[in-house]
Amino acid sequence: MTRRLKFYGWGFEGDGLSEPERDHLFRFVAEKLGAGPRPSGPPPQESEIVLRAPRVAPPAALAGVLTAEPYERLLHTYGKSFPETVRAFARDFANAPDLVAVPANESEIAAVLDWASSAKVAVIPFGGGSSVVGGVEPAVGDSYSGAVSLDLRALNRVIEVDPASRAARIQAGIRGPAIEAALKPHGFAIRHYPQSFEHSTLGGWIATRSGGHFATLTTHIDDFVESLRTVTPAGILESRRLPGSGAGPSPDRLMMGSEGSLGVIVEAWMRLQGRPRFRADAVFGFPDLFAAARAVRAVAQAGLYPSNLRVIDNDEAGTYAVNAYEESLLVLAFESSDHPVGPWMARAAELVSDHGGRRHDAEDAGQRWRMAFIRMPYARELTVPMGVINDTFESAVTWDRLEAFHTVVRAATEAALTEATGNAGVVSTRFTHVYPDGPALYYTFSAPGDPARLIEQWRHIKASASDALIAAGGTITHHHAVGRDHMPWYREQRPALFGAALAAAKRALDPAGVMNPGVLVP
Amino acid sequence: MTRRLKFYGWGFEGDGLSEPERDHLFRFVAEKLGAGPRPSGPPPQESEIVLRAPRVAPPAALAGVLTAEPYERLLHTYGKSFPETVRAFARDFANAPDLVAVPANESEIAAVLDWASSAKVAVIPFGGGSSVVGGVEPAVGDSYSGAVSLDLRALNRVIEVDPASRAARIQAGIRGPAIEAALKPHGFAIRHYPQSFEHSTLGGWIATRSGGHFATLTTHIDDFVESLRTVTPAGILESRRLPGSGAGPSPDRLMMGSEGSLGVIVEAWMRLQGRPRFRADAVFGFPDLFAAARAVRAVAQAGLYPSNLRVIDNDEAGTYAVNAYEESLLVLAFESSDHPVGPWMARAAELVSDHGGRRHDAEDAGQRWRMAFIRMPYARELTVPMGVINDTFESAVTWDRLEAFHTVVRAATEAALTEATGNAGVVSTRFTHVYPDGPALYYTFSAPGDPARLIEQWRHIKASASDALIAAGGTITHHHAVGRDHMPWYREQRPALFGAALAAAKRALDPAGVMNPGVLVP
Repeated sequence: MTRRLKFYGWGFEGDGLSEPERDHLFRFVAEKLGAGPRPSGPPPQESEIVLRAPRVAPPAALAGVLTAEPYERLLHTYGKSFPETVRAFARDFANAPDLVAVPANESEIAAVLDWASSAKVAVIPFGGGSSVVGGVEPAVGDSYSGAVSLDLRALNRVIEVDPASRAARIQAGIRGPAIEAALKPHGFAIRHYPQSFEHSTLGGWIATRSGGHFATLTTHIDDFVESLRTVTPAGILESRRLPGSGAGPSPDRLMMGSEGSLGVIVEAWMRLQGRPRFRADAVFGFPDLFAAARAVRAVAQAGLYPSNLRVIDNDEAGTYAVNAYEESLLVLAFESSDHPVGPWMARAAELVSDHGGRRHDAEDAGQRWRMAFIRMPYARELTVPMGVINDTFESAVTWDRLEAFHTVVRAATEAALTEATGNAGVVSTRFTHVYPDGPALYYTFSAPGDPARLIEQWRHIKASASDALIAAGGTITHHHAVGRDHMPWYREQRPALFGAALAAAKRALDPAGVMNPGVLVP
Repeated sequence: MTRRLKFYGWGFEGDGLSEPERDHLFRFVAEKLGAGPRPSGPPPQESEIVLRAPRVAPPAALAGVLTAEPYERLLHTYGKSFPETVRAFARDFANAPDLVAVPANESEIAAVLDWASSAKVAVIPFGGGSSVVGGVEPAVGDSYSGAVSLDLRALNRVIEVDPASRAARIQAGIRGPAIEAALKPHGFAIRHYPQSFEHSTLGGWIATRSGGHFATLTTHIDDFVESLRTVTPAGILESRRLPGSGAGPSPDRLMMGSEGSLGVIVEAWMRLQGRPRFRADAVFGFPDLFAAARAVRAVAQAGLYPSNLRVIDNDEAGTYAVNAYEESLLVLAFESSDHPVGPWMARAAELVSDHGGRRHDAEDAGQRWRMAFIRMPYARELTVPMGVINDTFESAVTWDRLEAFHTVVRAATEAALTEATGNAGVVSTRFTHVYPDGPALYYTFSAPGDPARLIEQWRHIKASASDALIAAGGTITHHHAVGRDHMPWYREQRPALFGAALAAAKRALDPAGVMNPGVLVP
């Protein structure tokens, strides 16, 4: 028996936080947000939800590909964002797709796109459905005759491994653990582990420019893509497998981050990593985030390329019960499939110490944080019915602007929490990825909200934080993607003429404009 | 007094090979190509050339920006390719630009593009003019009322240095040595040294996706670009300075490699490097290229990131008088501004030795080759009047296909040399850059030709080699760019639908289609 995914939250039905994890969460809510658990309702049941009748019927030729089965329509209504979860718990599935496509292969995908283009039906590619930015909700407006969510789950194989080049041809709908399992017998690994790893897909990673395992150097999935194959309404677009090329602008770089708006990524040749045989880890404490940042910058500019170089600030460490808020923690790690990493770690540790880092004896802190990090997505199905607002956003900025940026973004978020909820709430920060020219910052905010006004309250906080980070020179997203939620700030960030060029490219690939409308274009 | 550039060859008037360098070259031609020096003529003089009268006149508002001065028109007729040099020596300047623009600033560039768009005049951005692929020749056909070469030389400053982020805002028209001079007082360097370094520009590097100093990791200029500012006929396109972003497809990656076809890159924020304080070098010998390739692959996949990891095959080593053709040489180097590189070099050297490399005591070989490499571009003004065909081409391919690729490409090139010239000629090969999934290969071919048919003979060889490398799965160019010469094979290589998307993007940015017509689009 295959397990069913929850249509209202993270993971499979039956999975969730353990009792100790729940206890910690409830204690956090009570102590830090100053709110006791409120009356909370059970998650939605399929039988409680009345779905609108499909506005379009599958054509006969696609009867085996398209379904109007209610569970499938529910599962494909939402990603995993805060407002989506609130609406799911409110039993609001107004934007459910009319139909769900589960194509078995590329030609069925092409057939769906053909039909959708001629019938003016919106098509929303769906990988793991882990979008936290409204990337998969069929909120496409009334100019379409209907909406289809196109699930890539049947394209779930590692087709071919090239051990000489350390590359593999992999279908887009495969999830993280299945990739790892298929590569392991060959001695390789993907070494790309976003928080969503268990329930996200290769195609989703590429379409959203996912950020993964490595904190430096190869932070985005982009650098692991050797070539791409995409089905667009205008036909197949496949790039040549090449280790490098200077032949015009990169075709792959147009598809990376296209979020389903140009076509359906169906396959990629991916660069693989050897399985790590040598590792070294260390954790350092600093009085605050900016002190840790100076050490991080020194390591990031030293050409050492640690696999981990992350910081959690005092608030984040305290929230996750890693310490009692007294330190920001810098987690440093090296890994190699080829050589002992002692000299690398020695120099990086020296740089961190030179910048005031206090080395911890035990590495528990990093491990404890890591487990909490992976289990986080399960928390929302508990916090939403408690009326707690809890979300994250992320950005990146150059080092010269870091302190000004963080100061105004944090202040704007805190002010907005109070304005929206009357409660100061909690804001915490980490560095998820680090470049020689600046860090990627990740913010988590929480406050007790008004159960009747959660989305409105959330929207005020989200908009205030986004306004602040764009004004302070950051990006609206480092690795969560744009989706529908970030469009206003994406339009501010991107050069207007690039928007025009992208819209023109879309018209060439998707003449009927059916691919994930409202995302990226216009 | 400023020195004048040669309009028919490499470098400044008066510069060229030394007597010993000439002797070596003549000996190579005599001994290896089986041809004694033929009667050779002197280089063309300005006074010998009759230029067509300009087909367009500068509008009054641009009188100070546009010139019809004959030397300027000659200088902007050609890049530095073999067939262009042949035509220059034949006093053929039929495609000279009607006018040359030397704008002092961005608004003058915008004014030139406005005028050109309304008057249907082709505009060809010109940096250092070092294109070897026909990228700057105003061969634009009769559908334009004229052609302007737009020289960026007045935009030649490093405007701003951000030491915290290790980045600098640099104008596009500045040449390599001036960038280095401006960064040196700040303790930084660009660490991007294409062979053309002395006579090429930052904007040219970005527009052509130049390959530079580093043999691994950051091989292309692409990875050093933090943000770009481009003047297009439709207006200014400027990306935000960001260390990383996942907000949609990268705007910068559309402009990188656009070869002047979408607009004029005027400025970039570039990521800088610390000046190297620690270095280590080693040279290893192998019986042949494939033996060296196995060692290179091991190092490239070990996560060590040497600054140099290049191979010259037996023929290349012999041609450059580095040895007597008995070995292929692998040149390995590490550099760091932060730490001694001993452990890095020790592990890489161990891998090379494990794969059969014989370490040389002296490092002369690498140095000798490097000097010859930098001086090479001066040779053509001697070989062309001798009737010698001499050119290079480059590609990249994944490791799994390397041996098959190299075997057929080399054989096709050798066969074509004989077919075209009746002489076996000489073909040599090197690896210029190396990726975990494959090497970039660089071929040099030479043969004595028929002075009356040099271009026709060259074209047969070039076409045969290009056909072979595209059929064998390579790229038509790793870092020389596409220009006009590579268009037939670029069209085969790029996904057809990407071509359509690029053409659509161009229509959005360059509605009148005046930017470098014939290059990349359609």
